[in-house]
Amino acid sequence: MKAAFYQSKGTFTVENIPAAPPAKGEVQVRIGYCGICGTDLHVFHGDMDARVKPPSIIGHECSGVVTALGEGVQGFQIGDRVAVRPLWPDDTCPACLDGLSHICYNLKFMGVDTPGAFQEYWNVPDFTVHYLPKGLSMKLGAVVEPLAVACHDVRRSGVKAGDTAVIIGGGPIGMLVAMVAKEKGVNVVISEISQPRVEFAKSMGIEAVNSGEVDLVACIEEKTGGKGADVVFEVSGSTPGAEMMTKLVKARGTIVVVAIFAHKPPVDLHRFFWRELTMLGARVYERQDFDEALDIAAKGTMPLDRIVTKVAPLDEIESAFAGTGTNPVDMKTLIEVGGEL
Amino acid sequence: MKAAFYQSKGTFTVENIPAAPPAKGEVQVRIGYCGICGTDLHVFHGDMDARVKPPSIIGHECSGVVTALGEGVQGFQIGDRVAVRPLWPDDTCPACLDGLSHICYNLKFMGVDTPGAFQEYWNVPDFTVHYLPKGLSMKLGAVVEPLAVACHDVRRSGVKAGDTAVIIGGGPIGMLVAMVAKEKGVNVVISEISQPRVEFAKSMGIEAVNSGEVDLVACIEEKTGGKGADVVFEVSGSTPGAEMMTKLVKARGTIVVVAIFAHKPPVDLHRFFWRELTMLGARVYERQDFDEALDIAAKGTMPLDRIVTKVAPLDEIESAFAGTGTNPVDMKTLIEVGGEL
Repeated sequence: MKAAFYQSKGTFTVENIPAAPPAKGEVQVRIGYCGICGTDLHVFHGDMDARVKPPSIIGHECSGVVTALGEGVQGFQIGDRVAVRPLWPDDTCPACLDGLSHICYNLKFMGVDTPGAFQEYWNVPDFTVHYLPKGLSMKLGAVVEPLAVACHDVRRSGVKAGDTAVIIGGGPIGMLVAMVAKEKGVNVVISEISQPRVEFAKSMGIEAVNSGEVDLVACIEEKTGGKGADVVFEVSGSTPGAEMMTKLVKARGTIVVVAIFAHKPPVDLHRFFWRELTMLGARVYERQDFDEALDIAAKGTMPLDRIVTKVAPLDEIESAFAGTGTNPVDMKTLIEVGGEL
Repeated sequence: MKAAFYQSKGTFTVENIPAAPPAKGEVQVRIGYCGICGTDLHVFHGDMDARVKPPSIIGHECSGVVTALGEGVQGFQIGDRVAVRPLWPDDTCPACLDGLSHICYNLKFMGVDTPGAFQEYWNVPDFTVHYLPKGLSMKLGAVVEPLAVACHDVRRSGVKAGDTAVIIGGGPIGMLVAMVAKEKGVNVVISEISQPRVEFAKSMGIEAVNSGEVDLVACIEEKTGGKGADVVFEVSGSTPGAEMMTKLVKARGTIVVVAIFAHKPPVDLHRFFWRELTMLGARVYERQDFDEALDIAAKGTMPLDRIVTKVAPLDEIESAFAGTGTNPVDMKTLIEVGGEL
């Protein structure tokens, strides 16, 4: 089978290797599509070599079909169309014992801490496998994982129909958060400094503001009668985003930290005191978020296909990685491994 | 009657002025004691001259006896022993309409934004007056206001009996938060860099750690079997406190911002993401917190009298202010206005 190996900063090789049979408790999945995540890009840019030792097969946003079952696996059959929830907790740490296995203190993130889905056949623990709903394409099946992130973010926020939510940062995750919140009846505003992203959001019917040109605080105050937004999602991971987030929220409003901050920005803790704000972090997803993402994707009421802005074959993975993120309206690039199968 | 006027940085004058009768809806309170709050000290040090225009009568942590009733006041009688909850909301702003009048967008904090209690007779709106429970001295009645802050902080945190809570900063409010949490069965640890404060806390039966000498993170990890604290109260208002707070909390644990930060410290937002932490601000108190503080004070199971570390007569208010905070174990200085009455 073909497998793509991250070799070093900026380099993949695609090689032919034997497909291993699934071990006890594992399901072998023939991969249809696998998306490129921001984390994968960090690996590709050499920023995670300490964690991801080359040569490594990465990738975790995938769809596929079950091709073999390891010993003891029940509940799946060969030919089942599936998606993978790539979290491998240790089940024994304090977080796991508190029912928070998705943020296990020793979590293995599959495709980063273990081999991933940029290969034709991927063996995964059975507890990570979800059925794809009928009628959902392999292509959109590969978008379920980032969509589950958005479902988790929105659920954690507690935002309700009729509320006003601001999403700071209109990349793929910010866009998905906006789409999920809008689907739930929330009045959504995306804040972006990239005009092409503002236009992209608007083309999907999402209100968007160029915060480099418009006074966002005044805009949200006007929209909410001076009250402030109910919820702000910080998805930019930037110092200006962290500065803006506290200015936008109402008394007892909620800020959700979605972005992976690479630095420690100044935060207006006085504003937390003054308005009794809440800030909470949201990481990956729980089982119920993955199920919700599968449901939403299958329902087809959201323009999820618009999020897939590029598809490239496995053989061209290196150039696909190199090209991703060079255009502000690149949202999701999928690597076609087996295709629609 | 005597009244103390803040005149300028470092200066009070005590003058004889006529006592005004209470206006419509007001209660006239003869002040027993009034405590010196951190905010009062900021005023005294000239840091709030833009908000508190001299000459001003300040002070808001008081007990007293009702001496006259304005037109239309019901539910109080002359001679009633009372404490004052010094919050004057506008009842019309978005926060008030959401039932959050204690953080009204246009809140007048009495004794700061309006005249205060460092005078013999103070006229206050009737909705700010609470009965003092029988048997509670005027002296401890003046501690109810900061105790209500602690009750609010603890209630907002959601901390439960058996939980582990770390209080960063062992000044008067940190000490009261620790006492209230301990009263509720919480395993409390105060973190301080002042050894005298560590000793003071220990002398009250509260576990305390000198975080300048001991590895606090390791200490809390050991205490909690590697899990982390359930709740951290940031009461230091310092950059090291803001740095420490995110390191101490368990997955989905809670940080409460109690301190009034005068700057915007760097905050580890990645840790919020990684452990799905919650941070929330807590400001002053709601009616129920004030009632709880009155109950706790009356119950007498807490060594609340230990918090009162100095009492000075109104005539000596200037030197009392000048001396407060010069010793790390100065907790609460009370100004004796009418005394036990």
